[in-house]
Amino acid sequence: MASSLLSTPSRTLAPAPAPAGLRGRAPAQAHLPRGCPAPRRSRALRVRASVAIEKETPESEPPPTFLREDGRGAGSGSVRERFEAMIRRVQGEVCAALEEADGSGARFVEDVWSRPGGGGGISRVLEDGRVFEKAGVNVSVVYGVMPPDAYRAAKGVAGKNGAAEGDKAGPVPFFAAGISSVLHPKNPFAPTLHFNYRYFETDAPKDAPGAPRQWWFGGGTDLTPSYIIEEDVKHFHSVQKQACDKFDPSFHPRFKKWCDDYFYIKHRNERRGLGGIFFDDLNDYDQEMLLNFATECADSVLPAYIPIIERRKDTPFTEEHKAWQQLRRGRYVEFNLVYDRGTTFGLKTGGRIESILVSLPLTARWQYDHKPEEGTEEWKLLDACINPKDWI
Amino acid sequence: MASSLLSTPSRTLAPAPAPAGLRGRAPAQAHLPRGCPAPRRSRALRVRASVAIEKETPESEPPPTFLREDGRGAGSGSVRERFEAMIRRVQGEVCAALEEADGSGARFVEDVWSRPGGGGGISRVLEDGRVFEKAGVNVSVVYGVMPPDAYRAAKGVAGKNGAAEGDKAGPVPFFAAGISSVLHPKNPFAPTLHFNYRYFETDAPKDAPGAPRQWWFGGGTDLTPSYIIEEDVKHFHSVQKQACDKFDPSFHPRFKKWCDDYFYIKHRNERRGLGGIFFDDLNDYDQEMLLNFATECADSVLPAYIPIIERRKDTPFTEEHKAWQQLRRGRYVEFNLVYDRGTTFGLKTGGRIESILVSLPLTARWQYDHKPEEGTEEWKLLDACINPKDWI
Repeated sequence: MASSLLSTPSRTLAPAPAPAGLRGRAPAQAHLPRGCPAPRRSRALRVRASVAIEKETPESEPPPTFLREDGRGAGSGSVRERFEAMIRRVQGEVCAALEEADGSGARFVEDVWSRPGGGGGISRVLEDGRVFEKAGVNVSVVYGVMPPDAYRAAKGVAGKNGAAEGDKAGPVPFFAAGISSVLHPKNPFAPTLHFNYRYFETDAPKDAPGAPRQWWFGGGTDLTPSYIIEEDVKHFHSVQKQACDKFDPSFHPRFKKWCDDYFYIKHRNERRGLGGIFFDDLNDYDQEMLLNFATECADSVLPAYIPIIERRKDTPFTEEHKAWQQLRRGRYVEFNLVYDRGTTFGLKTGGRIESILVSLPLTARWQYDHKPEEGTEEWKLLDACINPKDWI
Repeated sequence: MASSLLSTPSRTLAPAPAPAGLRGRAPAQAHLPRGCPAPRRSRALRVRASVAIEKETPESEPPPTFLREDGRGAGSGSVRERFEAMIRRVQGEVCAALEEADGSGARFVEDVWSRPGGGGGISRVLEDGRVFEKAGVNVSVVYGVMPPDAYRAAKGVAGKNGAAEGDKAGPVPFFAAGISSVLHPKNPFAPTLHFNYRYFETDAPKDAPGAPRQWWFGGGTDLTPSYIIEEDVKHFHSVQKQACDKFDPSFHPRFKKWCDDYFYIKHRNERRGLGGIFFDDLNDYDQEMLLNFATECADSVLPAYIPIIERRKDTPFTEEHKAWQQLRRGRYVEFNLVYDRGTTFGLKTGGRIESILVSLPLTARWQYDHKPEEGTEEWKLLDACINPKDWI
């Protein structure tokens, strides 16, 4: 890691070599967990003891597969295996295309990690490129035994009695694989993109060996501009629609709405961006069909995004445009830390924190009670975040 | 509000007048809630419907008191009345002292709001001063009927069956008053300060009129430097100890540890700063004594903080120091949005969002996998956040 702390505070700051204290990684002992007593009444911390998943170990090289040789793993032709192959291929293709679009010679830095109990991941991050302020493209393939709390967080199931329901079930063996990416360009007219495609399996709980296994797909691709450029937004949504329409005419309207509903910052009554598609817990179609659908969606990321980046990466902008982008990035942070299911799940289960929070922008801003004046470009963006539109 | 979006992106940005689109407030209709369907499986959103507290109304002037004339309100000499008087006096004194320390002529902007059902608040914010990047000092005095979910969030009570327990109780009439403040200076050697003192009462639930009423005090003052300057940290903790020792020798050790435990960023295994004092649900002492104790703590804020600000507000610093401060501010955001009880409570109950999130810094930063090198000043700060120390 050669990333310095001072990569891109703003366009007008001269890049400076970082002092010794601010470079890359330090010896691991600086971050070893040490004695940490639980607060008297902290609910979060009480939950903690029951859901911590074993810590990851850094690896020097990505393995050919993270799967186990257990009949549903490597070499089996299983959905698990094909899904892993797909997300690893897409990770490579997306990173290569982003490096090319960045055009600065900046390269993704790769971190490979594994878990003693099974699985691992590959995190790739590009920071302080010419076009991208921060771009993370992660894959992970993890399995193990999931505590009921984590299972609830993953499923998002919680009735009035959420906690009580969960506590009735024992630990649940699970398999989860996914690709997750957030791309934050520097230019305020170049939108942030997020995509995530994941496949999940659970086995029967240990205390109920005959119970049925479950599987489901989830994911989506969504666009978060700071300014509305209709040509771009229409293009983005059109590509999502094309991908959906190849499978089921109901998919696009359903997943477009789901996306608008999901990326909702409740306490602001606004969405974080202009949506796209989102689906979760999808298992009411043929499994092969859904694997193909997830693959199609993941393969649509580059055609949906790269043309927009090419058009906007060099658009002239003012510091006012940049400040508005920073404010919208503050909203991005709010959504991810407060509501996002993946982030919440990761924080609860002690996932690899740097991989989880790579979704956060390099820089963000909060200004007291800022409200753009009606009719301005900033207001139009905010209005579209409050009132989702049909763009195509 | 004359605050512009572009107040202080960084020291090297020339201040520029904001364009029309980026000034103050827009007509309210731009922010009116409109149709917003609930996501299919969002737990957060399902909770929402049951806990929303009625929206606040802007007021032009602060009233003499937010209390009701109900025998325990205005003119009664009650703890409610004296607590409100105290926090409003402290708000005035703190704001005046901060304006003086800022020395730029920048003034706190005041927003007064009320709730139709009772109570209200006064938010005061100073942004882009010479010394302070963002300083918020809020008081609120609210009462009403609290849904069980909100009561649970306020009390922090949740056993294994937290949700189920709460659901058994009916809505709870409550009274809550508090002062809450976060002060973010610009200089990376001048620490961020947070303090919050609050008083809470509940009446018997409506379906159990004979049940006992409850009251409790909570609060604390804590320091979040980016760099350790021992003289400052010792001074800060000494003032907290002096305040505590006037009341009970057990208070300081107990509340110091409580503070270290509370401001804990679980997913990082580090605290957000260097602590101070924190207590909550305090009702196992004489009520008058605790009112005096809360008053003493609140009155200790200025003696604890202003000398530090005076010493550090003009310390020379580099862009590297500033970048490290920004990274620590990212941690501040993580704590506040993910763990802080006050923020969580506010977001869940639909409190005045700008007052709640004024605690967030103007700017913050996230850098992938940044770890300071062992032995550096940045590492020493991080080490002290991981391993709380006895400073005095």
